[in-house]
Amino acid sequence: MAVYTDIDDAALALLLAEYALGQPLAFKGIAEGVQNSNFLLETTTGRYILTVFEKGVKTDDLPFFMGMMSHLAEKGFPAPLPVPAKDGAALRKIHGKTCVIATFLNGMSPRRPTAEQCRLLGAGLARFHSALSDFRMRRPNDLSIEAWPKLFAGREAEADGFMQGLAGQVSGDLDFLKANWPRTLPGGSIHADMFPDNTFFLDGQLSGVIDFYFACNDFLAYDLAICLNAWAFERRGEYNLTKGRAMMQGYESVRRLEPRERDALPILARGAAMRFFLTRLVDWASTPADALVRPHNPMDFAERLGFHRQAKGVEDYGG
Amino acid sequence: MAVYTDIDDAALALLLAEYALGQPLAFKGIAEGVQNSNFLLETTTGRYILTVFEKGVKTDDLPFFMGMMSHLAEKGFPAPLPVPAKDGAALRKIHGKTCVIATFLNGMSPRRPTAEQCRLLGAGLARFHSALSDFRMRRPNDLSIEAWPKLFAGREAEADGFMQGLAGQVSGDLDFLKANWPRTLPGGSIHADMFPDNTFFLDGQLSGVIDFYFACNDFLAYDLAICLNAWAFERRGEYNLTKGRAMMQGYESVRRLEPRERDALPILARGAAMRFFLTRLVDWASTPADALVRPHNPMDFAERLGFHRQAKGVEDYGG
Repeated sequence: MAVYTDIDDAALALLLAEYALGQPLAFKGIAEGVQNSNFLLETTTGRYILTVFEKGVKTDDLPFFMGMMSHLAEKGFPAPLPVPAKDGAALRKIHGKTCVIATFLNGMSPRRPTAEQCRLLGAGLARFHSALSDFRMRRPNDLSIEAWPKLFAGREAEADGFMQGLAGQVSGDLDFLKANWPRTLPGGSIHADMFPDNTFFLDGQLSGVIDFYFACNDFLAYDLAICLNAWAFERRGEYNLTKGRAMMQGYESVRRLEPRERDALPILARGAAMRFFLTRLVDWASTPADALVRPHNPMDFAERLGFHRQAKGVEDYGG
Repeated sequence: MAVYTDIDDAALALLLAEYALGQPLAFKGIAEGVQNSNFLLETTTGRYILTVFEKGVKTDDLPFFMGMMSHLAEKGFPAPLPVPAKDGAALRKIHGKTCVIATFLNGMSPRRPTAEQCRLLGAGLARFHSALSDFRMRRPNDLSIEAWPKLFAGREAEADGFMQGLAGQVSGDLDFLKANWPRTLPGGSIHADMFPDNTFFLDGQLSGVIDFYFACNDFLAYDLAICLNAWAFERRGEYNLTKGRAMMQGYESVRRLEPRERDALPILARGAAMRFFLTRLVDWASTPADALVRPHNPMDFAERLGFHRQAKGVEDYGG
């Protein structure tokens, strides 16, 4: 949660003059997203979210993210639609930073997802993959397996500071992942960060998915493995087989997993846990004490790594 | 800006079951208010703000604040109306903390108020005072002149750390204020914190006033002095006579100041600057480095103290 950029009412008026969105009625900074500043903007034509991109997002990648959101919204997937200004371009500038106005999505983020929500999320993820099957833009996953050893280099002592022996386990995991990571699996556009706080539910439906700023091209089943990590573990680190099964059944109700994807699920899940463990480890150390955002504890994903290390097959995930 | 309390969707559902507000459509933490957590809540019956009171607010004072907001809203003043639950009580509990749901007010907070907005604010402040002339609840101003020496005690070195010699100036101010503070002036209910970020404007009108958590009983002209401090100084500390004059004319278009109030304005303005200087000095030192809220710099009000020290009469404020 954060609002890093303070938006002047004069600057907002100048920005809105570039759009045909009517007159502003309300404008509030909202505690959504970690990397960017987000504002609820209500005008005489409706409700929108203004996102101001902060330094964490590469400006060159923004057209990819905007293209993906527009593609999804056009396909009827509940993603925010970037609103073009009068000149047709959705990306604008405010206070010298790039920004976008997108449509507002109703719904609430689950804090403790139910098995039913896991099922809905699984089906939603598969619909997300299907809707993007003809999306032509590409972005490499710069947080995939090649990046992990680099992220961990020099952080062994830090890891051991969290738990004695953790560095050795992580090194072993990295070796195992490198030796066993699948070479080819069905690929496509993935969200790569579909955590509960990036989703909304309303009336028993998945009503919204937001925050596309890690989206990229990778194995589709890797996206499912990320979601299993993000949704099917309980607060004390236990894997909830009911939730995992619900998510996988939801996914397969829309898109059937191939046998090789099912076989790869344990290692993909282990890799996904590694990715979040490592980025949280980096963020933990690099977040200044006076930051507006509290970093996530990397240990949540160190615990998940422990589960994945012991998993024997897709059955252990409810598949 | 801050959201200190994370609201579980299950806890929100339990809370809403106590109300007749329909089903929730959206729920977002918003960056409004410093002491409490605030959430935009949209339901099938409208938009509301859920405020969760954090430790800064004394629970015993909440009925006073709720009473004032209800009184104002009933008089047609644009204040949020606390919504009673089915049992008639507006103050509820969520996650063990006291909370209230109040109506949502449209409008935008000015970041750089114009003279016209100062005029509207002045008139709004006088309407606020008039609307509360028959409000019967009382709350002492525990941040008035008796409190100031206690707030400053032991902070001389800190003050000098901001600017060499500041502690001596402040001590002199405190002596002067004690010796010259008015004994009696027209009194009543005051807001005591009507800064730009606690107001909304829409369609050339003051459309909302929020954040009543410093409201109390004191001299009415002291509230105007607070607003002159909060609205009529520019970013580099210069007093903007045009804005000050506009605010005073706005105020007097609704409620005429008595001669003794006009005479007292310079010392009231000096006291108001002292109050915000001191609380910011205390907050500056006491805010932990990892706090979610950045404290305000006390020097903004040390500069205003310098202006007030030289003011000869109400004319120096545009009155």
